[in-house]
Amino acid sequence: MPRYEGIINRYRAFLPIGKDDAVITLYEGDTPLHESMNLRNAINPELNIFLKFEGLNPTGSFKDRGMTMAVTQAYNTGSRKVICASTGNTSASAAAYAANCGMEAFVLIPDGKIALGKLSQGMRYGAKVIQIRGNFDDALELVRTISADGSISLVNSVNPYRIQGQKTASFEIIDELGFAPDFHALPVGNAGNITAYWMGYKEYYDKRISKSLPKMLGFQAAGSAPIVMGHPIDNPETIATAIRIGKPASWKQAEAARDESGGRIDAVTDEEILEAYNMLACLEGVFCEPASAASVAGVIKLNKAGYFPPGAKIVCTLTGNGLKDPDTAMQNVPAPVTIDANESSVRRVLES
Amino acid sequence: MPRYEGIINRYRAFLPIGKDDAVITLYEGDTPLHESMNLRNAINPELNIFLKFEGLNPTGSFKDRGMTMAVTQAYNTGSRKVICASTGNTSASAAAYAANCGMEAFVLIPDGKIALGKLSQGMRYGAKVIQIRGNFDDALELVRTISADGSISLVNSVNPYRIQGQKTASFEIIDELGFAPDFHALPVGNAGNITAYWMGYKEYYDKRISKSLPKMLGFQAAGSAPIVMGHPIDNPETIATAIRIGKPASWKQAEAARDESGGRIDAVTDEEILEAYNMLACLEGVFCEPASAASVAGVIKLNKAGYFPPGAKIVCTLTGNGLKDPDTAMQNVPAPVTIDANESSVRRVLES
Repeated sequence: MPRYEGIINRYRAFLPIGKDDAVITLYEGDTPLHESMNLRNAINPELNIFLKFEGLNPTGSFKDRGMTMAVTQAYNTGSRKVICASTGNTSASAAAYAANCGMEAFVLIPDGKIALGKLSQGMRYGAKVIQIRGNFDDALELVRTISADGSISLVNSVNPYRIQGQKTASFEIIDELGFAPDFHALPVGNAGNITAYWMGYKEYYDKRISKSLPKMLGFQAAGSAPIVMGHPIDNPETIATAIRIGKPASWKQAEAARDESGGRIDAVTDEEILEAYNMLACLEGVFCEPASAASVAGVIKLNKAGYFPPGAKIVCTLTGNGLKDPDTAMQNVPAPVTIDANESSVRRVLES
Repeated sequence: MPRYEGIINRYRAFLPIGKDDAVITLYEGDTPLHESMNLRNAINPELNIFLKFEGLNPTGSFKDRGMTMAVTQAYNTGSRKVICASTGNTSASAAAYAANCGMEAFVLIPDGKIALGKLSQGMRYGAKVIQIRGNFDDALELVRTISADGSISLVNSVNPYRIQGQKTASFEIIDELGFAPDFHALPVGNAGNITAYWMGYKEYYDKRISKSLPKMLGFQAAGSAPIVMGHPIDNPETIATAIRIGKPASWKQAEAARDESGGRIDAVTDEEILEAYNMLACLEGVFCEPASAASVAGVIKLNKAGYFPPGAKIVCTLTGNGLKDPDTAMQNVPAPVTIDANESSVRRVLES
C-alpha cells in the first residue's frame, strides 16, 4: 500500500505547484469523516449528518492544509523566513511547517492580551514571538507591510496559497462519500475556510467529478458576528476564541459563497456552542475546539426552525482539536466522587 | 477512493473479530510515518530514522488502536459498561470509544494525587471518575476484581484485545515502507506496546509479508525503570508521566520481545527526554508528549555508544500528542520580545 503523502501529492493536479518543487508536508489532510449516529438521533433522525474532523491534522487544526501550500511555495521561491500575525492555530501551523524545512518563523501578537498557553504550541516548534505595543489589526498591517518587499513570506490567510490548500477538504469529502452533500456547515472567523470549501466544491463540480453543489452554511459566534450584523465588531467576544474576529479578511468571499450556493450565514450563542461541544464529545466521542462546534450548533439551530428537508445530507466541519483549549475542557466537568478502596463501595457507584 | 475505516476493517484478517460484529471505530490508525531529515542529520547522517507519530490518533495516543478492539469486543458480547484504572491516555481513549457506541465508562483513580487537567479529556467524553482512598495498584486490583464476573468490561491493557489492536502499528509500518526496519525503538511504561509491536512484526514475518525482524529497543525513564533495574520501583518519578509506572503489567512479555529480537531495554534521563522532545518539535515540526520522546532519546544515547551500524533503518514510535501535556509545553520556552508597533522595530528583530 503506498504511503499517504499529504494533500499536495494527493491533489497535485488541482494545485498551483511545480512538478519539480520540493514538497514540505507533515502528512496533513486525510482526516476522518464520521457518519454521526447518536448525535444525529438526538438532533433529528431524518437527517444524515457527517463530521469532518480536522482536529487530527498534524498541528491539530485545518490550518495545516493551507500551510503546506504556503510554506512549500515560499521554500521553492528561495525564502527562508515566514511571518504571520496570529495568537493561535495559524502560528502553530506556520511554526511547524517552517521547522520541518529549516525555515525561521516569526509571529506578531498584540501586547498584553494573550495567554501564554495559546502561544506555547508555536513556541515549542521554535517560532520567535514578537509582542507589539498595539492591537491585532496593527499586527496584521505590520506583517503585510514587512513582507511586501519579498524578504520574508507572509503566511496569513491573505496568502492565496493558503486557500488553495484548504479547498482540498471538499475534495476529500466528495472522494469519500461519492457525492457532494446537500449542505455544508462550518464555523466562520476570518472567513478563509468557507471561501476555500466553496472553491473546492465548485472545482469538482466544474470538472464533473460531482453532480451537485452544497448550500454553504457559515456560523459566527453571536458576540463576534460581523457578517451577520453587517458591520465590523470592534471588541468581539466569545468563548470560541478561534473565531473571535471582528473584521474578517475574506468577508466578501464568504458572502459570495453564501449567495452563489443559496446558503446562509447565521450566528449562534456561546451557550449553543458549548452544548454542541458537549454533545459531540459525549454522543460521538469527538473532542473538538469550542469554535469547531459552531458548525453543529448552527445545524441544531436551523433544524429547530425547520430549515432542512427530510433526508438532507449535511457535512459539518470541526476545525480543531479539543486539546488545543485545555481551559475550556476543564470547565463544567462534574467533580469526581471519592470513596473507600473496596469492592462494595465501587459497586455502589456503578449501580447508582 | 474508499473511505479509510479504521484498523479493524483494514486488518480484519489478522484480528480476533467476528465477520458480523459491529465495529466501534473513531478511525484510529493510519498515522503518519515521517522520514526524518533534520533530526537524522543532527544525530548521525548515516542512519535512516523514521518517526511513527501516534499522536494523530483520535484521542491523541496509540491507546486508540487497542481500544477500538477492546470496546468492539465488549459491545458485541452485550456489555454496556467499561471500566479502567488510569490517570491519562487510557481513560481518555476508553471514554471516547464508549461514548461513540452509547456505553458507560468508569475510571478509577488514586485519591488526591491527580491534577484535574490530566483527567479532563476523559471527563469531557462523559466518563464517570471515581477517586478511591488508595494508590494506583489498589485501583487496578479493584477494577480486576469488579470486572471478573463479566458485569462490566475491563479495558486496561491486561485485556488481550488491547494488544491485538496495538500490533497493527507494525503492520502499517511494513505496509508503508515495504520492509521491516532493522531496529524499532519505543517508550516503555506498562510495557504493553513493545509487546504488541513485537507480536505484529512476528505475524507479518511468519506469513512471509516481511523478510526480516527488527531488534526491539525499549526505553524507560531513569527514575521509573523497573525492567532496567530488575525490580519494581515503589515511587517512580519522571517528567514523562505517561511512562511513570513502577511495576509494568507486561514486564515478562517486554523482556521476551527484547531477548527474542536481540534488542535492548535501557533507561534515559529526563534531561535526555526533554532534549529529544525539543529536537522533534524544532527540527521536524513534530510535537509529541514528553514520554514519546523517550524513543528518540534512547536512539541518541545508543548512537553515541556506537551501537548502530551505518545505514541502519530505525523506526521510533512517538506514542502521544504534545497537546496532551500543556504544562510541560509551556515550560522552558523563551519569553516573547516586546517592541513598538512600527516597521523599523520589527525589522530590527527579524535581522537580529
